[in-house]
Amino acid sequence: MKAKEVKNLLEKVGNQKPLIHNITNVVVTNFNANGILAMGASPVMANAVEEAADMAAAADALVLNIGTLDSAQVEAVYLAGRAANKKGIPVVLDPVGAGATPYRTNTVRELVENLDITLLRGNAGEVSAISGIDSEIKGVDAAGGDKDTKKIAEHASFELGIPVAVTGPIDAVTDGTSVYQINNGHSMMSRITGTGCLASAVAAAFLSQSNDILSGAAAALGYYGVAAERAEGFSSMQGPGTFQAELLNALYNVGEMDLRQKLNIQLKNAGEIND
Amino acid sequence: MKAKEVKNLLEKVGNQKPLIHNITNVVVTNFNANGILAMGASPVMANAVEEAADMAAAADALVLNIGTLDSAQVEAVYLAGRAANKKGIPVVLDPVGAGATPYRTNTVRELVENLDITLLRGNAGEVSAISGIDSEIKGVDAAGGDKDTKKIAEHASFELGIPVAVTGPIDAVTDGTSVYQINNGHSMMSRITGTGCLASAVAAAFLSQSNDILSGAAAALGYYGVAAERAEGFSSMQGPGTFQAELLNALYNVGEMDLRQKLNIQLKNAGEIND
Amino acid sequence: MKAKEVKNLLEKVGNQKPLIHNITNVVVTNFNANGILAMGASPVMANAVEEAADMAAAADALVLNIGTLDSAQVEAVYLAGRAANKKGIPVVLDPVGAGATPYRTNTVRELVENLDITLLRGNAGEVSAISGIDSEIKGVDAAGGDKDTKKIAEHASFELGIPVAVTGPIDAVTDGTSVYQINNGHSMMSRITGTGCLASAVAAAFLSQSNDILSGAAAALGYYGVAAERAEGFSSMQGPGTFQAELLNALYNVGEMDLRQKLNIQLKNAGEIND
Repeated sequence: MKAKEVKNLLEKVGNQKPLIHNITNVVVTNFNANGILAMGASPVMANAVEEAADMAAAADALVLNIGTLDSAQVEAVYLAGRAANKKGIPVVLDPVGAGATPYRTNTVRELVENLDITLLRGNAGEVSAISGIDSEIKGVDAAGGDKDTKKIAEHASFELGIPVAVTGPIDAVTDGTSVYQINNGHSMMSRITGTGCLASAVAAAFLSQSNDILSGAAAALGYYGVAAERAEGFSSMQGPGTFQAELLNALYNVGEMDLRQKLNIQLKNAGEIND
Repeated sequence: MKAKEVKNLLEKVGNQKPLIHNITNVVVTNFNANGILAMGASPVMANAVEEAADMAAAADALVLNIGTLDSAQVEAVYLAGRAANKKGIPVVLDPVGAGATPYRTNTVRELVENLDITLLRGNAGEVSAISGIDSEIKGVDAAGGDKDTKKIAEHASFELGIPVAVTGPIDAVTDGTSVYQINNGHSMMSRITGTGCLASAVAAAFLSQSNDILSGAAAALGYYGVAAERAEGFSSMQGPGTFQAELLNALYNVGEMDLRQKLNIQLKNAGEIND
Repeated sequence: MKAKEVKNLLEKVGNQKPLIHNITNVVVTNFNANGILAMGASPVMANAVEEAADMAAAADALVLNIGTLDSAQVEAVYLAGRAANKKGIPVVLDPVGAGATPYRTNTVRELVENLDITLLRGNAGEVSAISGIDSEIKGVDAAGGDKDTKKIAEHASFELGIPVAVTGPIDAVTDGTSVYQINNGHSMMSRITGTGCLASAVAAAFLSQSNDILSGAAAALGYYGVAAERAEGFSSMQGPGTFQAELLNALYNVGEMDLRQKLNIQLKNAGEIND
């Protein structure tokens, strides 16, 4: 994918300032709202059943993040999800911690069955747990290799019937036919909380401005990974506290020059052997 | 208003360390608690119906922020609000997102009717929605001009019968008779989440130490705006991540010299034509 | 205590990456998750009754923090606490704001009675309130002297029958027989929110890797205090916004050299007169 394509979507986000409705966990609310603002979109966090549907109906994209879910939030998730489906806006599902407890795994599976999910975005362990390949692929974690990420995404997309993005050292986005592999990002992203959650929100913002789910999601993750590389350059190994601030700075400042220099996204066929 | 007047109130806050009870949204809790600490006051966040009244009765000021309200929180808001009214401490209402959903707009109107609100502090869009002037003033948003801010505040104060502060590029605080216009602040404030919420908390801290609502609120917004200008000076266009940290630094460090150099507050009559 | 002992525990944390389950308040979730990550452990925040027991059963240590408790969270605390006790993992109780409302004080007392608490970690005021010595020791606050901290910890440990850590300018950890006094830390810790809460989480991570409660908790508070000193060195008096980021950096970067230069922990007998 060319830097120009990513830059164009980023500019559309900045010009349109899409309203991104987040039903998300209490750990990342501040960081994710600031990340959404930094990229030029407008965040709103509204978890209550009393207004979840109304807010989703006013939004341009919806992020459903189960990081600190409980039964009231699940109810709000369904209300917002149905309103978003009715309106036809993108819905990104972030299965935080799926696999850690039966409650999370089951809730995610039910959401995928009962709502039209535009994109499932998780790490290798979470996505594996949802699509039931824990026993087949061993040692899956955020530090896993690129082949794992691609295979896990392909398997999950096949099993769940929806586009899937698996993020890690190399990100993979697939609909079961094509796969984008995004070779951007930095290992410091795993040393602060909420970078995965923010990846989902960035994807939602890009999808609200894209006609194509796969390339839109890949562009989002490319932009996000380039921002992380820029952030680590500026934080100069000082540590995660500085990196967190610099990631927000980078989301705000990444321009065509950064993208031209750093963007590294390849399009492949799903199931390709020599990858 | 003179820098000395603002400085005196700020010093009273630092000496008295008033306890500011916040029933607020989950997005800004950390940032606002740190902002309140940075200015020298003591924050407490307590949303539960089980203790909202007790905590308000122990506090020196109460902030009611509806950013992520639900029915349980609304119940806590009433319990705390009545306890605060009984004790006679200032109550600042922040109508985050009023106008975005009927639930928010209606909840704010009922709060204004049923509690003694010392100050309503919102942005132009929120305050317009509450006072029912959506259709009269078009294109109202945070980027609106100074006349809009003043008119919206005056109209809302007249309609609601309480002092109103509308913040934006130029802030306006009015009781319907007099208006303070605060020409401080920086546009970066709109690029991080929670700066409006923190403005309400800073106002609550100043009001706990002031005998006059209007001048106390104006002094708070002047101090806050000067801190934002100082913060942007120190963050040197690095971006919102750095600005967020520098705003806390500035709230901690703003002194008489900053106020003398930057404070710009004018007192006018409400309804004045040549403003 | 020698730097080597602290360093060894810190390395065990980094190698084992223990899962620290936090049922904590909405103010500190992001900061504490980042602090836990920075030190090399794995945080999870899960408050819901639907999964609290499952998550605790999967964890290596449990932190129970009542900073924004309500009845649903108290139910989750009991479910997680019983699962943790059954598994035999350390449980650290942080009585945030005990003494401020009867709800907090009573909830903490009941938790101590009904769960096996490995360590109670609070400030002087909180611990005094729980053990009922408000009237005996006057003027207790975070700025209190070293003797107060030691006495309060000893009294609470005697009254409650569990190990107690009281943090302040000088920290004291005791089981009623021995007392560790930790002369590390920096006054800036009291100017940002959540440093006490994070101390509890750091202690939980160390306790998950230690065979001895008292020395494990003391080592944790020593490491944490040294990190705070390093952070203030790097933030160079810029203010609390910078200090917050630098504290995360320091937790990530503190090594044997920092510990050798700064660690200052003494072991004494409880009740010793000449302390």
